Amino acid sequence: MRIGILGTGVVGQTIGTRLVQLGHDVKLGSRTATNEKATKWVNGAGDHGTQGTFADAGVFGEIVFNCTGGMVSLDALNQAGAESLKGKVLVDVSNPLDFSHGAPPTLSVCNTDSIGEQIQRAFPETRVVKALNTMTAALMVNPAAIPGDHDVFLCGNDADAKSRVIELLRWFGWPGVLDLGDITGARGMEMILPIWLRLMGTLKTPMFNFHIAR
Amino acid sequence: MRIGILGTGVVGQTIGTRLVQLGHDVKLGSRTATNEKATKWVNGAGDHGTQGTFADAGVFGEIVFNCTGGMVSLDALNQAGAESLKGKVLVDVSNPLDFSHGAPPTLSVCNTDSIGEQIQRAFPETRVVKALNTMTAALMVNPAAIPGDHDVFLCGNDADAKSRVIELLRWFGWPGVLDLGDITGARGMEMILPIWLRLMGTLKTPMFNFHIAR
Repeated sequence: MRIGILGTGVVGQTIGTRLVQLGHDVKLGSRTATNEKATKWVNGAGDHGTQGTFADAGVFGEIVFNCTGGMVSLDALNQAGAESLKGKVLVDVSNPLDFSHGAPPTLSVCNTDSIGEQIQRAFPETRVVKALNTMTAALMVNPAAIPGDHDVFLCGNDADAKSRVIELLRWFGWPGVLDLGDITGARGMEMILPIWLRLMGTLKTPMFNFHIAR
Repeated sequence: MRIGILGTGVVGQTIGTRLVQLGHDVKLGSRTATNEKATKWVNGAGDHGTQGTFADAGVFGEIVFNCTGGMVSLDALNQAGAESLKGKVLVDVSNPLDFSHGAPPTLSVCNTDSIGEQIQRAFPETRVVKALNTMTAALMVNPAAIPGDHDVFLCGNDADAKSRVIELLRWFGWPGVLDLGDITGARGMEMILPIWLRLMGTLKTPMFNFHIAR
């Protein structure tokens, strides 16, 4: 499958590498076509990894991942373009972390809205599925990296889009997901970040994840 | 030990009942000294359960639990009175759930502040420990009600106060806690509520809890 990834940070690169390993064709998109981090990634990714602008990645992908920071996601997606994202599944992995007031970051949107909802409203013909934003990148693509049961959450308005993301998460090693319903579930998924950050401080590692014991 | 509980809802009653079973003396405090829910609870609680006003419960308790709704907590605590709460450990179990705009509730404070912090600021001579707000009442006092490992979080500015709450949580059956640091950790602990509510909708039961797999 052809997959476009918006964002060249650790999250975008980690997901891109895993998808290439799984035999997919991945284009890493950035503000510029010659982003250095993306070039370095492409050099290590073999024949199935390429780079380009956000627009290039948006056109390229049958499925598109938003791995940009939440505060710049709408801008990146606008550069990708509504026309090229039309009808496609967009996996939104972003978090609205605002570091402008120092650490710890606050959320630039929360409580009555979320980045996931903002994206769905701005791109009504794109099928947004929020997923994977509640854990560190290494775990997203390799849940076996920590022992025992732990969970990945997902939400979105389109049942078929969610099914496709569930299949994709299965490729990554996730046996099942916790489906939180429509895209308004993104509020809870994003608002879990403050305790995640606090836990990282307590545990002194990002290698942990939420498990819903029941 | 003498324990005051502010709030006569399910949380206050459940914690009160468990503490009475453990041999403690509990006074359930309410806006009025003759609250009907509290009277009913007292009738079932044996010799060690009594009721009174918020002020009565505040004076009575060596440790005080805030089990009122987050939106009315400061008012209830003001009725309890800064003088009677001075130097005491206050276990804040509240959540700032605002149902005034319908369901699901939003949070009346979040992101840059929390109820836990508001209480600590308003009562600087009281030692506030946020705990237990991230699960349903039945689990607070009986973690064995669901199988497997799962976690209770705690935060506060006073190390000795946290030690005392950790001991109290051990009485309830919690072998350990995840200490999230100072009282600003209450932001994350309260902001987990939206996903908790969403999970309750997905799982169709409140009998679940967060476990931090690592």
